[in-house]
Amino acid sequence: MCFLQFVQGMQRATNVTYQAHHVSRNKRGQVVGTRGGFRGCTVWLTGLSGAGKTTVSMALEEYLVCHGIPCYTLDGDNIRQGLNKNLGFSPEDREENIRRITEVAKLFADAGLVCIASFISPYSRDRLNARNIHEAAGLPFFEVFVDAPLDVCEQRDVKGLYKRARAGEIRGFTGIDSEYEKPEAPELVLKTDSCSVNECIQQLLDLLQERDIVPVDASYEVKELYVHENKLDLAKADAETLPAVEITKVDMQWVQVLAEGWATPLNGFMREREYLQCLHFNCLLDGIFPFSGVINLSVPVVLPISSADKERLDGSTAFALAYGGRRVAILRNPEFYEHRKEERCARQWGTTCKDHPYIKMVMESGDWLVGGDLQVLDRIYWNDGLDSYRFTPTELKQKFKEMNADAVFAFQLRNPVHNGHALLMQDTQRRLIERGYRRPVLLLHPLGGWTKDDDVPLAWRMKQHAAVLEEGLLDPNSTIVAIFPSPMMYAGPTEVQWHCRARMVAGANFYIVGRDPAGMPHPDTGKDLYEPSHGAKVLTMAPGLISLEIVPFKVAAYNKAKKAMDFYDPKKHQDYDFISGTRMRRMAREGQNPPEGFMAPKAWNVLKEYYQSLEKA
Amino acid sequence: MCFLQFVQGMQRATNVTYQAHHVSRNKRGQVVGTRGGFRGCTVWLTGLSGAGKTTVSMALEEYLVCHGIPCYTLDGDNIRQGLNKNLGFSPEDREENIRRITEVAKLFADAGLVCIASFISPYSRDRLNARNIHEAAGLPFFEVFVDAPLDVCEQRDVKGLYKRARAGEIRGFTGIDSEYEKPEAPELVLKTDSCSVNECIQQLLDLLQERDIVPVDASYEVKELYVHENKLDLAKADAETLPAVEITKVDMQWVQVLAEGWATPLNGFMREREYLQCLHFNCLLDGIFPFSGVINLSVPVVLPISSADKERLDGSTAFALAYGGRRVAILRNPEFYEHRKEERCARQWGTTCKDHPYIKMVMESGDWLVGGDLQVLDRIYWNDGLDSYRFTPTELKQKFKEMNADAVFAFQLRNPVHNGHALLMQDTQRRLIERGYRRPVLLLHPLGGWTKDDDVPLAWRMKQHAAVLEEGLLDPNSTIVAIFPSPMMYAGPTEVQWHCRARMVAGANFYIVGRDPAGMPHPDTGKDLYEPSHGAKVLTMAPGLISLEIVPFKVAAYNKAKKAMDFYDPKKHQDYDFISGTRMRRMAREGQNPPEGFMAPKAWNVLKEYYQSLEKA
Repeated sequence: MCFLQFVQGMQRATNVTYQAHHVSRNKRGQVVGTRGGFRGCTVWLTGLSGAGKTTVSMALEEYLVCHGIPCYTLDGDNIRQGLNKNLGFSPEDREENIRRITEVAKLFADAGLVCIASFISPYSRDRLNARNIHEAAGLPFFEVFVDAPLDVCEQRDVKGLYKRARAGEIRGFTGIDSEYEKPEAPELVLKTDSCSVNECIQQLLDLLQERDIVPVDASYEVKELYVHENKLDLAKADAETLPAVEITKVDMQWVQVLAEGWATPLNGFMREREYLQCLHFNCLLDGIFPFSGVINLSVPVVLPISSADKERLDGSTAFALAYGGRRVAILRNPEFYEHRKEERCARQWGTTCKDHPYIKMVMESGDWLVGGDLQVLDRIYWNDGLDSYRFTPTELKQKFKEMNADAVFAFQLRNPVHNGHALLMQDTQRRLIERGYRRPVLLLHPLGGWTKDDDVPLAWRMKQHAAVLEEGLLDPNSTIVAIFPSPMMYAGPTEVQWHCRARMVAGANFYIVGRDPAGMPHPDTGKDLYEPSHGAKVLTMAPGLISLEIVPFKVAAYNKAKKAMDFYDPKKHQDYDFISGTRMRRMAREGQNPPEGFMAPKAWNVLKEYYQSLEKA
Repeated sequence: MCFLQFVQGMQRATNVTYQAHHVSRNKRGQVVGTRGGFRGCTVWLTGLSGAGKTTVSMALEEYLVCHGIPCYTLDGDNIRQGLNKNLGFSPEDREENIRRITEVAKLFADAGLVCIASFISPYSRDRLNARNIHEAAGLPFFEVFVDAPLDVCEQRDVKGLYKRARAGEIRGFTGIDSEYEKPEAPELVLKTDSCSVNECIQQLLDLLQERDIVPVDASYEVKELYVHENKLDLAKADAETLPAVEITKVDMQWVQVLAEGWATPLNGFMREREYLQCLHFNCLLDGIFPFSGVINLSVPVVLPISSADKERLDGSTAFALAYGGRRVAILRNPEFYEHRKEERCARQWGTTCKDHPYIKMVMESGDWLVGGDLQVLDRIYWNDGLDSYRFTPTELKQKFKEMNADAVFAFQLRNPVHNGHALLMQDTQRRLIERGYRRPVLLLHPLGGWTKDDDVPLAWRMKQHAAVLEEGLLDPNSTIVAIFPSPMMYAGPTEVQWHCRARMVAGANFYIVGRDPAGMPHPDTGKDLYEPSHGAKVLTMAPGLISLEIVPFKVAAYNKAKKAMDFYDPKKHQDYDFISGTRMRRMAREGQNPPEGFMAPKAWNVLKEYYQSLEKA
């Protein structure tokens, strides 16, 4: 709520009288940048020339701005040529230089920005004055000592100033013939001779998070729900004493999704508030996130429970989840709410057709949902020979780092890879390199949870993907093949957002989306359940997918003239052969080969083997 | 997309090399405040002491901040006591004062804020210098002359400075014994002796909108789609030459909704892109809006059209809409897309039950939707004796202004008003007054479009509402009764957002929401179609309802002890009588009276009359 305010003296046209007032910091905090309160403060970087102040300030500024936190850097560039161009380097002028900077920093902090002041500022007295001025105005002040030994700074000598100072061309140069008074109790010391920029920024963010300047969630840390090793014995003992409820295999897959942090920042199965936000807005709205203040989450991550179990467990402060008789997790502070199945299915799938395979499971599940805080005990494995492909988002991020990836593009699939898919991935890689990325890495990320009966099972798909890599269609050196633990929902435009956001959590910067993602035929009519273009359209518009870019692709089809998969050109319609899944399955079953260039031969052999194994069964 | 950037010299832990760079203004524009680009600029207010600079700057700052546009005011308060506390009032010091302020303003503008500089700044040379410094940095600079005659300023003499200057206690006072050089070509002159603050701010906003600093939509102007009077003859002639399509009464109600701007900023019936945003996110995402960058719009405002009409009209650049044989509107640049009815109903209503009365209409409507830009010819009236209650959002805003409302609270209803409703409205008014509002106005806003057969028709409801006012349950002096032209959809939590946002457009600052808004029994089961608490829950969380506050209410019921409607207290359950709609209807039909204090007697008589008229029919 806000109204224009008037002062009495100016009020002529109407006879209403208002009280004049300034915009409060609280109000400013709601408006300037992200939600979540006033963030105005000053980060004062002090240190020798060459210590790395500019590098740190630029990296911090970029990090904050990229995460929706308004900030501004004051440094030599914008101060000495403007505000302080009438000051020299005499002791008085140096003092006045820092005094003015202090006052300007205070104004920026008061305006709700994180002000980064990056100046040698050699004298303790001046820095203390800066601190006092901020504190008197109720504004946080962080003195950060950017600390590198003089000899390291002199060796770096980026601007050649040390050389000139040593040569006597510059007088009063800090560290050479003018003293640098080291901070005695700075909020942070950054050892730039032994820490990377990344590490320095992490230390700064830790400080700013601790002081509530940077929201913890803004760093997009993956929120894992596995119990920490040193508390595991306790939690396991606890779980044994609690009442338990047996969950299904699909529920267990959702436990894994939550445990590994794919649904970050959920603390467990959705509570009603989160569930309503998800169903109505496809987003979580309560967190403090960059840009729009929302994070995309389009599919309910919920735990159905029977009325009998609800009766039994209502009032408990915690209970255990058991899978196959083994206690796998604890759900704390449970919140029971009605599983309004018709409404849920309608909003999640845009249909209530009971022959839709996932909707069928929903309809047969419990009449209540239970949300709560989840603690998952042991790392979840499935012992199907594929566990070595199962990486958590954190593990994937680490792998990308080890591979020196400067861009990660993700490809979700639940089907065998044909050369049309390979074309999309190759083309994306080419485009990223054209855009200046040096080391784009492909995350080939088959879905590993529940799929409907007529989809190719995970084990066969993994074999097929391995054959594709073996045949060189994708570069094994810049590709990670891993399994995404989520069940498949066949929920079209709603689900493609989930597929994308989960990869965003795992560090993907680009997400490839093709025709009719997560679609299937309508069980009643046999027509597309979703309009095939809606998936990509909805995904490119979806709010809260802030740290990645959507790469939509046009249709690829088999080009008979080129004997290869190709982007469809409607002008040469006669050249293209759209090979449907049904036709592909028939060919494989009958032991035929597809047209040359449709699929890598070894990969096709895997499919033939699979479909023929079905015939024998 | 953004990555931390490194400079080579600091890069030790990995061997990746990045190019250092600053945050671009473009990037800053995406982040600081609202979407829609970099808004950094300086608004330089110059004028005599007492001319109204502070008043204007405070009002502008509050307006901008309230509309999500980050800004900061530099003025005597925060400059003379800080940055420039070492300056006096000698000519040199005055020049240095303005020079420093100029440089600081430039930094704020460069940081992406609207910097308002509010200083007498009497010398043309200094102001020209300020302009040049900004322009050299590529930052817009707006010189605004806050112009009041000296005698007016001296008469106001808010700080008593003129008196002291006249008495010789202050030397060099601008306007008395120091010259004020009037701006020769300022961007704007604000005549504060003849314009109200409101008018001044409007002139400033016009300027800032023209220069793309303030997005036009941020002012929440109602977007009416009626053809301007001076183009009406042309448009009508045009409409006669175009192919036409006949629309239904409900479609015509939607035309009215669009024409009057309730669905601002829609330009007409939704195109597919808007439709998908609405269905999936309950919001429009493309506009430039304050805060979250979205505006709530939860219900599809769409025009169904038959396949035959689509065939006939496809390829036209425009066609006319006819109602009752008369051409009422032109739809330009039409976009046809599939009316996927099952999916639409599922997502809009959370059910596909064909016996739901609005879903039934959808299922019977055309298989295509057509979006496009709408031009509505004549003002829409219904000639039912109630047109004098039909006000557009713009007309309502004008009425609130004439009533000197400092808060408007809206109450949506499609049923007769009982004392429970009155209690909510009275209680809201009381709470607003407690919060310091002096003139809260109630918008009693019955829905006037299509309703299902067993709801009380509009004409009877209006009679009943009039009786309620007549009996003094609501204060006629602070109440506006008007008709909301929308059809009723019975879509629960999805529709309550529509009811609320439409009133937001009309200037409401508060919206009352009770139990089970826009709900009805499930046609199949007879149970509540929506969980009764979900409406208020979803509404209070809904994104894009930025300029009003939701006032959720607990249940009111008849308190038998108090003989009055009362907020339900579960501890005294035995005292309460929940009088259902069914029971109320039966009593009215049978000519009985409800318990004393349930409804104003005259209002009850209207209902009795209505239900008995049904019996006779």
